[in-house]
Amino acid sequence: MRNKTIHDSEKNSWFITGGAGFIGSHIVDYLIAKGKKVTVYDNLSTGKELFIKHHTHNKNFRFVKGDLHDVDLLCKSIKGSDSVFHLAAHADVKSGFEDHMIDHDQNVEMTHNVLEAMYRNNIKNIAFSSTSSVYGNATIHPTPEDHPLIPTSLYGATKAACEQYIHAYASYYEMNSYIFRFVSWIGERYNHGIIYDVLKKLKKNKNEVELFSDGSPKKSSLYVGDGISAIFTVIDKAKEKTNIYNIGNNYLHTIDEITDFILQSAGATDTKKNWLGKNSNWKGDNVHVLLSIEKLEALGWKPKVTIREGIKRTVNYLQNASLL
Amino acid sequence: MRNKTIHDSEKNSWFITGGAGFIGSHIVDYLIAKGKKVTVYDNLSTGKELFIKHHTHNKNFRFVKGDLHDVDLLCKSIKGSDSVFHLAAHADVKSGFEDHMIDHDQNVEMTHNVLEAMYRNNIKNIAFSSTSSVYGNATIHPTPEDHPLIPTSLYGATKAACEQYIHAYASYYEMNSYIFRFVSWIGERYNHGIIYDVLKKLKKNKNEVELFSDGSPKKSSLYVGDGISAIFTVIDKAKEKTNIYNIGNNYLHTIDEITDFILQSAGATDTKKNWLGKNSNWKGDNVHVLLSIEKLEALGWKPKVTIREGIKRTVNYLQNASLL
Repeated sequence: MRNKTIHDSEKNSWFITGGAGFIGSHIVDYLIAKGKKVTVYDNLSTGKELFIKHHTHNKNFRFVKGDLHDVDLLCKSIKGSDSVFHLAAHADVKSGFEDHMIDHDQNVEMTHNVLEAMYRNNIKNIAFSSTSSVYGNATIHPTPEDHPLIPTSLYGATKAACEQYIHAYASYYEMNSYIFRFVSWIGERYNHGIIYDVLKKLKKNKNEVELFSDGSPKKSSLYVGDGISAIFTVIDKAKEKTNIYNIGNNYLHTIDEITDFILQSAGATDTKKNWLGKNSNWKGDNVHVLLSIEKLEALGWKPKVTIREGIKRTVNYLQNASLL
Repeated sequence: MRNKTIHDSEKNSWFITGGAGFIGSHIVDYLIAKGKKVTVYDNLSTGKELFIKHHTHNKNFRFVKGDLHDVDLLCKSIKGSDSVFHLAAHADVKSGFEDHMIDHDQNVEMTHNVLEAMYRNNIKNIAFSSTSSVYGNATIHPTPEDHPLIPTSLYGATKAACEQYIHAYASYYEMNSYIFRFVSWIGERYNHGIIYDVLKKLKKNKNEVELFSDGSPKKSSLYVGDGISAIFTVIDKAKEKTNIYNIGNNYLHTIDEITDFILQSAGATDTKKNWLGKNSNWKGDNVHVLLSIEKLEALGWKPKVTIREGIKRTVNYLQNASLL
């Protein structure tokens, strides 16, 4: 990492791209509760007004419906912020195999635009949502942050590319960066992924669910409340110019176990699991994802919610929020 | 790295982007001498017909004047090749600080196009010219290949991004990749960089040359003949799916020493060096570049030409080739 520096202790005015999304809206909640000013910039392609509307009348909150391709609106809207949390992205890991442009366009191009808008407005702090997918099929488990990046999907590749662009701008313009490599997040406002898919299928047929892979891939998941506390532990305590942190926990579960937790939480313990087999797994998937969180733990952070409990809360949320 | 695999032992038909450039044309010479088929694809923006014209009448050689933004021509021209050496790039490390689009456009966008053309034509071997700049200000010297990539320039960032895109396509489509992280190359057909700049200045004023930095940055350089033998040692002997190799040597010289070698080679030992000072150094430069070549040496490769001798040959070449 770079030389230590005295950070701006104050990050009072945040610009959150993708702030109406699952994770983004929880970040907004946290910052608003801390008395910070927040501008949410979101095109609502996957984000939802529902997730941020409780802040509408807060004088510290502002929502701009905008796209990151619209550089003029972006530059106008970002003005006056001192910190950026860039979450807007194409967040479907699977689709890059079919569509070779979408990750390039929505991750790399848009991150480049965000960095350019920061440079033009002299904004010095950037937090970025990267992913465990940047490691590809890691050879070390749990995987530390200094493991080589050999991604196996265009999603992972473009997120790694975004990290690199951030490093360059941070070097040119003395920015502080916080790069978070996330495992899968679960919890309230979760709205795509395996829990969503299984519940959708259960709704159609309670007797049997069809499932991709053979159930053997091992994955990590993190409850959103723990993720938010991890992020802000890093932003408050990490003091390098470049701060790269895995955001995960020490639990590893097979997709089969996770599916059982989902079915149990949904009261569907008699449902038959119909695994489509190894070859049905999507191209570029990483079948063993466990991140080292030693760096994060060294800052004093600990997760509080087990995966089983996190899945239960997610299932309850989805069943009650009419998002299925 | 990935699982070992049985490589196509035959790489008989090469498509070389940037094949009319300094390094590219030496690769062409090597492959033609080995009896391989070669298509050079170059827009001649920095490449020169002079460097490839001696192959014009060879039945194994074909030149296409084309730009990598022209995807139709690219796809048409690449058809029938079994291997690609992608060298075309924006190769000026310094200019990304002033122009934030040029590296993105000429490195990432164009590499994406090359990969897409390979996918559409079912081509399975890619060699790529990356750079020591992907490491940024490395914390370990000599720097091994598994050192984290924290580039300090958009040149380094976009080259790292290209590596990531190659990993993704290689994973999706079972390609073999050879990624070469180069230090500076010198030798015959060298046509930009410090040797070129110093000789240009000497031509104007033999009494004094004005020089950027304070002379203290430490750099590595490699003679082109040694570089070519290093590259083909890797392509012939490395057997992983993903092969990442530093291409350098074990010599480290300050810019001051390199400048002395240049002046001595040019017979200008009385010329005064006027260092503009530390602050004149370009933004994003890495002031200590020494790559570990343990991996490369383990394949049996050794460099033959010292830096002093390499600089002498480069100066002789430039003075005789009317390129100044």
